[in-house]
Amino acid sequence: MLLLILELVGIATFAMSGSLVGVVKRLDLFGVCLVGVFTAIGGGIVRDLLLDIHPPSSLSNWRYLGVALTASVVVFYLHTVMSGLNREILVLDALGMGIFATTGATIALDAGAQPLAAALIGATAAIGGGVLRDVLVNEIPLLLQRDLYAVPALLGATAVVAAHEIGLPQNLSLVIGTVLATGLRLVALWRGWSLPQPRLPRED
Amino acid sequence: MLLLILELVGIATFAMSGSLVGVVKRLDLFGVCLVGVFTAIGGGIVRDLLLDIHPPSSLSNWRYLGVALTASVVVFYLHTVMSGLNREILVLDALGMGIFATTGATIALDAGAQPLAAALIGATAAIGGGVLRDVLVNEIPLLLQRDLYAVPALLGATAVVAAHEIGLPQNLSLVIGTVLATGLRLVALWRGWSLPQPRLPRED
Amino acid sequence: MLLLILELVGIATFAMSGSLVGVVKRLDLFGVCLVGVFTAIGGGIVRDLLLDIHPPSSLSNWRYLGVALTASVVVFYLHTVMSGLNREILVLDALGMGIFATTGATIALDAGAQPLAAALIGATAAIGGGVLRDVLVNEIPLLLQRDLYAVPALLGATAVVAAHEIGLPQNLSLVIGTVLATGLRLVALWRGWSLPQPRLPRED
Repeated sequence: MLLLILELVGIATFAMSGSLVGVVKRLDLFGVCLVGVFTAIGGGIVRDLLLDIHPPSSLSNWRYLGVALTASVVVFYLHTVMSGLNREILVLDALGMGIFATTGATIALDAGAQPLAAALIGATAAIGGGVLRDVLVNEIPLLLQRDLYAVPALLGATAVVAAHEIGLPQNLSLVIGTVLATGLRLVALWRGWSLPQPRLPRED
Repeated sequence: MLLLILELVGIATFAMSGSLVGVVKRLDLFGVCLVGVFTAIGGGIVRDLLLDIHPPSSLSNWRYLGVALTASVVVFYLHTVMSGLNREILVLDALGMGIFATTGATIALDAGAQPLAAALIGATAAIGGGVLRDVLVNEIPLLLQRDLYAVPALLGATAVVAAHEIGLPQNLSLVIGTVLATGLRLVALWRGWSLPQPRLPRED
Repeated sequence: MLLLILELVGIATFAMSGSLVGVVKRLDLFGVCLVGVFTAIGGGIVRDLLLDIHPPSSLSNWRYLGVALTASVVVFYLHTVMSGLNREILVLDALGMGIFATTGATIALDAGAQPLAAALIGATAAIGGGVLRDVLVNEIPLLLQRDLYAVPALLGATAVVAAHEIGLPQNLSLVIGTVLATGLRLVALWRGWSLPQPRLPRED
């Protein structure tokens, strides 16, 4: 039950981040909603395609779509009000990322995936929505460029797989993985940690 | 038989719209053909992946590929002649969109998808090709930005699902859905209907 | 055994071409690695999704990922040293393309695909990684614009299917297809062959 609530929180925050990008790009109401919904459920759809779950669960369940659509419409009409909430949205987005990484890895293990594949598919579920969002609005995906985002997702998914391998109960491994992924993301944001950039002396 | 003809008309017009974009972007002959073919069959491939139909029917059937390729080559060599046909192409494209939305929803229902998933997959089949076209040529998908396009597709697919739920025969529901989707698209084009844009006072 | 070595060479060169693009785009270490890995295994993932192989073999096998990741990290730190190796990289890339086209078609035939689908899926495996690379870094895919790239891939995959139809042994058809695809690509590069561009007198 707690997990379902968390998952819907994750979907809502991903829908918000997607629809805010749509507003900035001046898309129309449908475009804003489509980018919002796709950001929220895109990672889960890719996860289900990789795992042979047909049709993807996000397309069969009113709850996910309803939450994603509502969040997108709210952003469309109230985005000026929300411009002061950037910090809160970043925190919720980090929570959503951690949740999707760990639930994705758990679903992959349940579907019989090997440990390596399960960790990669969990990370894909967490970052896929954001990559699709940026491809749709014609930007180089943000997570390729700066900030620690995919590394925490990989860490959380890997923790779930490791916990499964040593026999921890599923609920505990979900909590551990989410705390690790979300925690590392938040610490990295607050400390300004990032990965090295390539040295390109010839262009400077 | 009528349906097959309509479907090939839809594929031909989608291939034309894709290859015209390729010509404008100055791609070479293969690039123009690839964008044209992908626009024509891309929505159907995504539909089949979501429904677990392997390999996608468009990849196994000479007819679809042959029509899409022929239309693309014709556009490559005769595009200057066709520049006066914009109105006719828009009408055919609206017909193709309506056909793909309703056949997509029907195929999804036949494959055992739930009503919600069937409506969404039908709409995806109708708009997927155009989105892939615009992503390939590095543009923000047109349908996210203006005009009613995805809304008619959703309407047509939903009509098919509703007709199926109340027990109408499949052929009748295909006709109803296509007429609704194509009709709304054409009326919206002629009347200039569109969805609201976000208000961004700070940027004006 | 020879084939496995060749396949790993193909993955390494594709990872190099992807991560070099990431360096030019000034992505961070993770971004460079993700683009490199995705370029190397993206075509195979799309191939496996189309063929209903779950989860895709590249996600289940340490060897592919390890080689792709190592090549990307090497490029990230040593890209200045490698700037003199453009010619060698083009040759290796042509070899990788030929290998992926023919192994892709072979895997498709083994999975029961029809000849047409097998040829198309083989070509998709060969060009998919490069298309995904360019979409990720927000460029119009290079292979749509100039040079012969997809035509040799289609030729190699078609040769494998034809050889299979007339009953040649699999190893022989793999060699024939790879030599044809890679050879045509190299000859086209050295002679500067390309496909016709559309005539756009109005823009000149």
